[in-house]
Amino acid sequence: MPVSATRLEGDLQRFAAWGGTPGGGVSRIALTPADRLARRELIGLLRGEGLEVRMDEVGNIFGRLGSWERAGVLLGSHLDTVPEGGRYDGTAGVVAAVEVIRALREEGRLPPCPLGVAAFTAEESTRYGVATIGSKVMAGVMSLDAALALTDAGGLSLGRALEAQGGREWVAGPADAGEVGAFLELHVEQGRELELAGAEVGVVTHIAAPTRLKLTVFGQAGHSGSAPMGLRKDGLTAAAELILALEQLGEDEAEHGTVATATILALHPVSINVIPGQVELGIDVRSLDAVSKRRAVQRFLALAQRVCDLRGVRFSVAFLADEEPARLAPELVAAASSACTRLGVRHLVMVSRAGHDIANLSRLAPAALVFVPSRGGLSHQAGEFTSLEALVTGTRVLAETALAAAALVGEGCRHA
Amino acid sequence: MPVSATRLEGDLQRFAAWGGTPGGGVSRIALTPADRLARRELIGLLRGEGLEVRMDEVGNIFGRLGSWERAGVLLGSHLDTVPEGGRYDGTAGVVAAVEVIRALREEGRLPPCPLGVAAFTAEESTRYGVATIGSKVMAGVMSLDAALALTDAGGLSLGRALEAQGGREWVAGPADAGEVGAFLELHVEQGRELELAGAEVGVVTHIAAPTRLKLTVFGQAGHSGSAPMGLRKDGLTAAAELILALEQLGEDEAEHGTVATATILALHPVSINVIPGQVELGIDVRSLDAVSKRRAVQRFLALAQRVCDLRGVRFSVAFLADEEPARLAPELVAAASSACTRLGVRHLVMVSRAGHDIANLSRLAPAALVFVPSRGGLSHQAGEFTSLEALVTGTRVLAETALAAAALVGEGCRHA
Repeated sequence: MPVSATRLEGDLQRFAAWGGTPGGGVSRIALTPADRLARRELIGLLRGEGLEVRMDEVGNIFGRLGSWERAGVLLGSHLDTVPEGGRYDGTAGVVAAVEVIRALREEGRLPPCPLGVAAFTAEESTRYGVATIGSKVMAGVMSLDAALALTDAGGLSLGRALEAQGGREWVAGPADAGEVGAFLELHVEQGRELELAGAEVGVVTHIAAPTRLKLTVFGQAGHSGSAPMGLRKDGLTAAAELILALEQLGEDEAEHGTVATATILALHPVSINVIPGQVELGIDVRSLDAVSKRRAVQRFLALAQRVCDLRGVRFSVAFLADEEPARLAPELVAAASSACTRLGVRHLVMVSRAGHDIANLSRLAPAALVFVPSRGGLSHQAGEFTSLEALVTGTRVLAETALAAAALVGEGCRHA
Repeated sequence: MPVSATRLEGDLQRFAAWGGTPGGGVSRIALTPADRLARRELIGLLRGEGLEVRMDEVGNIFGRLGSWERAGVLLGSHLDTVPEGGRYDGTAGVVAAVEVIRALREEGRLPPCPLGVAAFTAEESTRYGVATIGSKVMAGVMSLDAALALTDAGGLSLGRALEAQGGREWVAGPADAGEVGAFLELHVEQGRELELAGAEVGVVTHIAAPTRLKLTVFGQAGHSGSAPMGLRKDGLTAAAELILALEQLGEDEAEHGTVATATILALHPVSINVIPGQVELGIDVRSLDAVSKRRAVQRFLALAQRVCDLRGVRFSVAFLADEEPARLAPELVAAASSACTRLGVRHLVMVSRAGHDIANLSRLAPAALVFVPSRGGLSHQAGEFTSLEALVTGTRVLAETALAAAALVGEGCRHA
């Protein structure tokens, strides 16, 4: 199959220029000028390949080969990055989607159903505190109004940021994602399972989902010399108990694949001679097993109540996210695995513990996710690297899976 | 005795104007323009009372009634504050010192030995990370060169900040603190012991001293979803163990009056979806009992080694301070207590768990510290408040103690 390493490399370099950092990474925060330039680059690339381009109300970009009204196979990912991120996370999936269409066309193997390319808005939670915003809106997991009202640290809403970019004025035509019969995504693995297993491709069956809390402990600040140990309401020691308790809950649920992470988002006051009064914890619990995740979160909240009661401090909790794990379409997982076997690609059927746009899209249509290895498991940093060879292999699997998906979509149409 | 509430109130208001905050507090960080103006105010006040003014090389200001060459009784405190601090911490002791001289003169009870007023540079650790800098240099606890080389967060040295204020050019004469036969300080209590005991004055016998460490845990940052619990090197969970271990050590040593406080000075990265890699802890251990304090610090460091070894993370330690607790002069403590009894003042003989300039001066000469109550124990905040009545009472005790100290100094001279 004529998947072209040269074209993939050229496309990756085109995008890496927008927001490129001196260290070889990319800082392309959603809806910043760098992201806007990358989005323009994509529109040019899609039109250059003969695709019609549309954008929806939340800024998701779609290219279409064929009718927007007939169910098609949509392929894609996202272009935004974390600060000081890498060149591959998200972008690899967008350039692979374009390359699938080019390769199938060159081979004369374009399926009878429409093919589309998608780039979703604000996959990373960096700017608005919420991940996969564009695909959430598309899948109806989040309302358009709620998404547009999200604000960044400077108080600027996503809606205003989109408008400042010219909104949908860039592209002609209606705000339309087209009919989606199936969705496929290629993404870099954000771990080392493929590398450790010596596999070239991962075929993902399930995607973990986070529950995220902001838990604020309200203790009492005080003089680190004159406040006796027994009379303190130290916010940080209370928080330390919660951090260790959460770690223990994560370990208790580890057999269910659940992980639990605490970070300190803010602390006040910060001074070596003052007892910290107020501590804001960010709690991230993820699992493929919704029951295990819910149990961990509920036990944690009960425990926080006990710890804070015993220490005489108050706390408040806000749920920032509470998502359901996603199961990808077994028929497409099987198709991707078969494609690997046919192509002689060493592959691993696996789960994704990181979130992806496809977790939302899987609620709209049968969906499949193909992983390519990330060297050393490095992710969200400039050192992120996927070999061109691995990307070519992943794109070939993606193309074969797209053909299988097109066949399913066709059957679906017939059955409908 | 004609200690004047009106004059004390007027002087407090004069100083509160320099760096005054809308909330009624004072932000007068050492050697900032606000501090410079307060220092000029003091020089004017001292000269107005007929005192000769000198400044030493680290910027300590001295007023002198009588010879600089004969041993005198020096009284004073400091003018700098923490950010958003109060009107009383430090300043109360400076205005009380001036009022002692005025009151004794009016009564015709000036002692035969010289009397001096001192205002020490940078008592608060806010700007340079080190507390009681001016008195440390005067007592030889810190070298002048080391003090002048201390830098603030912007990289500006204390020496340069002094020069930017005009250095010693403000005052004529040599850089001279005068001969110190005894030192007395009045300060607001930074706790509630006096209030709870219903006492008007505290006579302090010992001053606790801090050992301060900066302990940095070097874990490994990672994706909060894709890193399995068992393979993490979470810097924050390691730090949480250390925070709780330190609290336990503080409780173990509480019977020796030792307190131990941890704060998180910095954390990296700070993101709800990233395992924190690096955590910088500020550790503050204080005690009146040097043996207990040393034991707590050593046990903490041994424990940090074990915790970090078990978790497979590294750590580094820097000692920021390691001071010895001070014992004030028993003969002056007795004199201050007797003065209270004679004057009918309800007093408490107590210890200070907060540090003060006098801890350094006590290494140079017999020294005594008089506490006045601070409402609700509030300290280092705008709400800090000491009633004028309490301040008058404390100043009367200070004046009587100064006369007793003058007698001791005189005897010392005779015996010498």
